[in-house]
Amino acid sequence: MNSTLRQDAENMIRQAIDAAEPGFAVRKALKGRTFPGRVFLIATGKAAWKMAWAARGALGRQITGGVVVTKYGHVEGALPGIECFEGGHPVPDAEGIRGTEAALKLTQDLRPEDTVLFLLSGGGSALFEKPLIPLGELKEITGQLLAAGCDIVEINTIRKRLSAVKGGRFAAWCAPAKVVTIVLSDVLGDPLDMIASGPTVQDRSTSRQALEIVRRYHLHFSPDALKCLETETPKELPGDTETCVIGSVRGLCEAAAEACRELGYTPVMLTDRLCCEARDAGIFLASIVAAHAGEGKKTAWLAGGETVVHLSGNGLGGRNQELALAAAAGIAGIPNAAVISVGSDGTDGPTDAAGGYVDGDSLAAMKEKGLMYSRMMENHDSYHALEAIGGLIKTGPTGTNVNDISIALLGAES
Amino acid sequence: MNSTLRQDAENMIRQAIDAAEPGFAVRKALKGRTFPGRVFLIATGKAAWKMAWAARGALGRQITGGVVVTKYGHVEGALPGIECFEGGHPVPDAEGIRGTEAALKLTQDLRPEDTVLFLLSGGGSALFEKPLIPLGELKEITGQLLAAGCDIVEINTIRKRLSAVKGGRFAAWCAPAKVVTIVLSDVLGDPLDMIASGPTVQDRSTSRQALEIVRRYHLHFSPDALKCLETETPKELPGDTETCVIGSVRGLCEAAAEACRELGYTPVMLTDRLCCEARDAGIFLASIVAAHAGEGKKTAWLAGGETVVHLSGNGLGGRNQELALAAAAGIAGIPNAAVISVGSDGTDGPTDAAGGYVDGDSLAAMKEKGLMYSRMMENHDSYHALEAIGGLIKTGPTGTNVNDISIALLGAES
Repeated sequence: MNSTLRQDAENMIRQAIDAAEPGFAVRKALKGRTFPGRVFLIATGKAAWKMAWAARGALGRQITGGVVVTKYGHVEGALPGIECFEGGHPVPDAEGIRGTEAALKLTQDLRPEDTVLFLLSGGGSALFEKPLIPLGELKEITGQLLAAGCDIVEINTIRKRLSAVKGGRFAAWCAPAKVVTIVLSDVLGDPLDMIASGPTVQDRSTSRQALEIVRRYHLHFSPDALKCLETETPKELPGDTETCVIGSVRGLCEAAAEACRELGYTPVMLTDRLCCEARDAGIFLASIVAAHAGEGKKTAWLAGGETVVHLSGNGLGGRNQELALAAAAGIAGIPNAAVISVGSDGTDGPTDAAGGYVDGDSLAAMKEKGLMYSRMMENHDSYHALEAIGGLIKTGPTGTNVNDISIALLGAES
Repeated sequence: MNSTLRQDAENMIRQAIDAAEPGFAVRKALKGRTFPGRVFLIATGKAAWKMAWAARGALGRQITGGVVVTKYGHVEGALPGIECFEGGHPVPDAEGIRGTEAALKLTQDLRPEDTVLFLLSGGGSALFEKPLIPLGELKEITGQLLAAGCDIVEINTIRKRLSAVKGGRFAAWCAPAKVVTIVLSDVLGDPLDMIASGPTVQDRSTSRQALEIVRRYHLHFSPDALKCLETETPKELPGDTETCVIGSVRGLCEAAAEACRELGYTPVMLTDRLCCEARDAGIFLASIVAAHAGEGKKTAWLAGGETVVHLSGNGLGGRNQELALAAAAGIAGIPNAAVISVGSDGTDGPTDAAGGYVDGDSLAAMKEKGLMYSRMMENHDSYHALEAIGGLIKTGPTGTNVNDISIALLGAES
């Protein structure tokens, strides 16, 4: 293994993840801010507790009260003056709805000088929810939409109208108070009305489009659900709203690019919305490095996003480990080439690793250990393949969640 | 459809393919060259006839005699003084072997001042073959190698030793004459000893490695085949040899990059050895364009190579059409984004199209026509999806074959 390359790759990743740490990012966003009236803090998503904790640290007694709605196991302690709820994710449940109702209760009857500080992170779509129809019916409708092959925009056009808080309705509820939304985004490309279906963002879809979707796909809706679709989401948000994205996969890539520069690599930003199959992303990245080997320039190609894995076999791994392992063949024998891929939350699939690293020596190292590369790829057994050659990256939980980052590196020629 | 983008994309592709036309490339390589003694022309591969025809045009009476061994249906007419054979591809057959034997007969007893002009193109591996074991046994061994999961390097290490012409043996046969090899490459990365298993290139693999492969994968070889493996390929080619790659997917990309510059786009060369799943290459390329939309720079990302498609369903298409169609979702709604992908030989799968083009309007156009995008992707029905929106690229046969080129474009913002 090329230890300089490995160290460079790990440094790039570490620096990127540090910049995306929710507490760090929230403190930076709130630094020096003051608010005229009362401040109500509503935090939801997987990083809700961490974001609320940081906001409390930054604003202290300015906070009048608050509600955190996060995923089971994600409340790390009591926050004085803030009620914490844990609910179901990715499927919403009664506990999440109870938390959402508490948030709605806290933010009723606000005054124009009040501020609602809405801290939003990945998972907020399921966790911050108060359906206008029974939960069971909502699940059944979601199932119909998926089975019909609706895309995510179509699904959200429907779901926003079946919710009391999505599609800008939470902001409308908070009026006439000001709503400041701080987003730690895990949605590729950061479309604000898509992150948790935009509780505080004006909805651009219409009732007509929603009804058209029902017609086009021959969906079966109850009269109550149809009535919800006919009710328009607020087209002009009544209060003053402000949204700022403080962490996202783009930020992750930018921080990694900065680290590349510091280490003497020219960063080439490919994309911040990688979403293809993990295996093929790895093969593609390897083909990029291999094509440029021998040009004598230290270069790093960066791709952020979230790849997918279509599982088969009984191997152990995660999308980042699979991406790295898949890249091993394409860079085999190139002494200054490496590919690293890591989940920013420090986890990758059902493993204790955050991702994987391979370089030009990895394929030979596997062969030496008697491992059959193509079989392990087929079996999606990236964990064991990388473990055998010391290619696992373990960071432990990082406390953030802004998707994954993959870097293809061409280091100095020796 | 964005007609300026479409025109730009097609111009880039056309210019790239023109530069890779075999006749044009051979004439350029032979321009002004003279040879001291007799010149024997041996041409093999799918472009063999076209290359021989161009060489005859360039060298005229300097050519003493020649043999062409190409694929069935690829001889386009008689070439005075040159014997033309058509044989099996991709599986070698007796006719190809007969042609190869004619080439060996023509090049026996050469003198030091003689030159063998060896014109090699894609398909040469099957077409230029004289096995040292019965053809049936060679096929059976190839089957064993594939079933065992051997990689292409391992397969070639074995196959070079079972052939009278591969692994530098044809060059050794031609000694003491000079051998000038002109390669129109369809192998990604142009590893010279891999193109047709390098009849005129020194073999870097060894007998020991070949025997080790038999042992490692528990392969069953006849005593005769084992004896072949024990016989080393020539480690020092006795005559004077010279190899020049005149056309390749890298050249295709470079010509496209030149066209981009002329049209005011900044070309970003990604790779000349794209080899992942077509669908995922399309998604990846789309994610690159989408991430850079709004930066206000006319940019073209180039990827050459040969993607793969794992077929299911009963749709019609080819890897280039599938790549383009897969890109449509990721660039939907971006007015100045487009992705084009084309096979340089002018064919793509079992269709009359060379590839496909999509832009930011394509997804909406399909929806308008009542086409279900996700279903057509699943069914690999890229031909019909693209046909419906005018997204097929048809060039007719181009006479060359240097893999595919894909371009992701970001044009001027309107």
